[in-house]
Amino acid sequence: MSKIGYLGPKGTYSESVAQWYHSQASYDSTLISYVSLSRLLEAFESGDIKEAVVPVENSLEGPVSTTLDRLVDISSVQVIKEVDLPIHHVLMTKCPRSLQEITHVLSHSQPLGQCQGFIHEYLSHAQIFSTTSTAAAAKSVDEHQLDPNFSVIENPQTSFLSAIGSIRLARLYNLCVVQDAINDSSQNYTRFWIISKHATQPTGQDKTAIVFSTYKDTPGSLVTILEEFSQHAINLSKIISRPSKKSLGDYVFFIDCEGHQHDAVLADVLARVKSKALFYKTLGSFPNAEVLDA
Amino acid sequence: MSKIGYLGPKGTYSESVAQWYHSQASYDSTLISYVSLSRLLEAFESGDIKEAVVPVENSLEGPVSTTLDRLVDISSVQVIKEVDLPIHHVLMTKCPRSLQEITHVLSHSQPLGQCQGFIHEYLSHAQIFSTTSTAAAAKSVDEHQLDPNFSVIENPQTSFLSAIGSIRLARLYNLCVVQDAINDSSQNYTRFWIISKHATQPTGQDKTAIVFSTYKDTPGSLVTILEEFSQHAINLSKIISRPSKKSLGDYVFFIDCEGHQHDAVLADVLARVKSKALFYKTLGSFPNAEVLDA
Repeated sequence: MSKIGYLGPKGTYSESVAQWYHSQASYDSTLISYVSLSRLLEAFESGDIKEAVVPVENSLEGPVSTTLDRLVDISSVQVIKEVDLPIHHVLMTKCPRSLQEITHVLSHSQPLGQCQGFIHEYLSHAQIFSTTSTAAAAKSVDEHQLDPNFSVIENPQTSFLSAIGSIRLARLYNLCVVQDAINDSSQNYTRFWIISKHATQPTGQDKTAIVFSTYKDTPGSLVTILEEFSQHAINLSKIISRPSKKSLGDYVFFIDCEGHQHDAVLADVLARVKSKALFYKTLGSFPNAEVLDA
Repeated sequence: MSKIGYLGPKGTYSESVAQWYHSQASYDSTLISYVSLSRLLEAFESGDIKEAVVPVENSLEGPVSTTLDRLVDISSVQVIKEVDLPIHHVLMTKCPRSLQEITHVLSHSQPLGQCQGFIHEYLSHAQIFSTTSTAAAAKSVDEHQLDPNFSVIENPQTSFLSAIGSIRLARLYNLCVVQDAINDSSQNYTRFWIISKHATQPTGQDKTAIVFSTYKDTPGSLVTILEEFSQHAINLSKIISRPSKKSLGDYVFFIDCEGHQHDAVLADVLARVKSKALFYKTLGSFPNAEVLDA
């Protein structure tokens, strides 16, 4: 039985994608949840799991740093599928409450960022707590405590916890929805990658993800690499810079381009990019993103 | 008396930079601390403060999203100075403790990210809490509570809080240093910008920060903009992409280039960049970064 890992626990957005992927899989598989992205990627690297579902980018908050930074180091990783999940956040509490009564807002840092306009306008009187996942926040609200090692609040009459997450999560913990659709933008999507150790075959509708760094003090070194793509009219659908962790102003670039790494023209372009880069790695080729229902 | 704002409270890395800048200022000024970056930038935009000290980028964790995203919107902002602060994190507790005894680690999300290797290796048994600043974390450790609305912990014999921040912060709260130099990399710098409403005059050793977005579906639109710089042998010292918050794959780019916006050649290049961009803004010209002592 093959194992597919995801960032749990039950009720996270990652779990929605993992459940969907699991239901599509053509082989016998079982889902395993991990408490953090680091642990999930460790289990993938060590071979404990065959595939992993990892968030890579959000349309409002940008790249998921932990995922991108670790993909640079993990050997023989191949992205095999891309999935976009529409994100609709709700604010949930244990019992019906007005916004004014809420004293604490708990969620993962990405949802907190995606709802900062709403929080700023309606919940600026509350304290904000960042949790390891949206599900951990809902669990805290359900149990009415920030942390199992801390006792329940002193004045339950004056302290009310709330969590931000999906409507699915509110139902799972039987919590009340105080406010629906609290995202700052309705264009809120999170992109997930399914990673494996084996590359895909071309489908004719593919794109390829690569990561590279440039020679820092050479003028226009990024330009000469990007020109390789534009000279062959190969569209780039993503360009993200991340710090190389060496010094300020030193970056690695994540690019998605049209085509499969086994296509003759693209293979040729990628070989030239590799020869011009300080560091280079092909992260995989996969069909264009599937968009799931919310 | 002019007001200079920063992300407080006392003991944060931002305060170190604000204190240094304040001591250098040629005019009468007073420092004002704000509880969050959003509030600080709001006070700047409304004219409540004349200048603000804002973190923009860390060599390990990358861009400070809140700062960059807000700078796109704020009208007539000009960056007038750049300062790099070396970051040395320590782990602090109220009384001397071994790493094994620690049950909670508190800090701002950036320091938590910068020490994730150390946390993973030595503190994987502890719970991690993200706070609004390193100073807020130290205060919680000093008061032995996660939150003033929650009572003290049930089992003080078995629960020990720790905070991550500067040695200066440990001294301010009279906390014990359990472990020094816990950054994953010694090359840990945070870059700060001083922002004002008025542009600087050229010094001969300047660089210029701009932000722009490209027409999404035009192949090579980013390349044609970057070529404007490389054709005039103008070095780029920074390139950061951030989501435009419109849809996945739609970005704004933050670039730092050599020269002052009033230099004839650069002014010409920037005018051409503006004509090719969907959105364009000059963020300011300022002398090359000053590096402070740790």
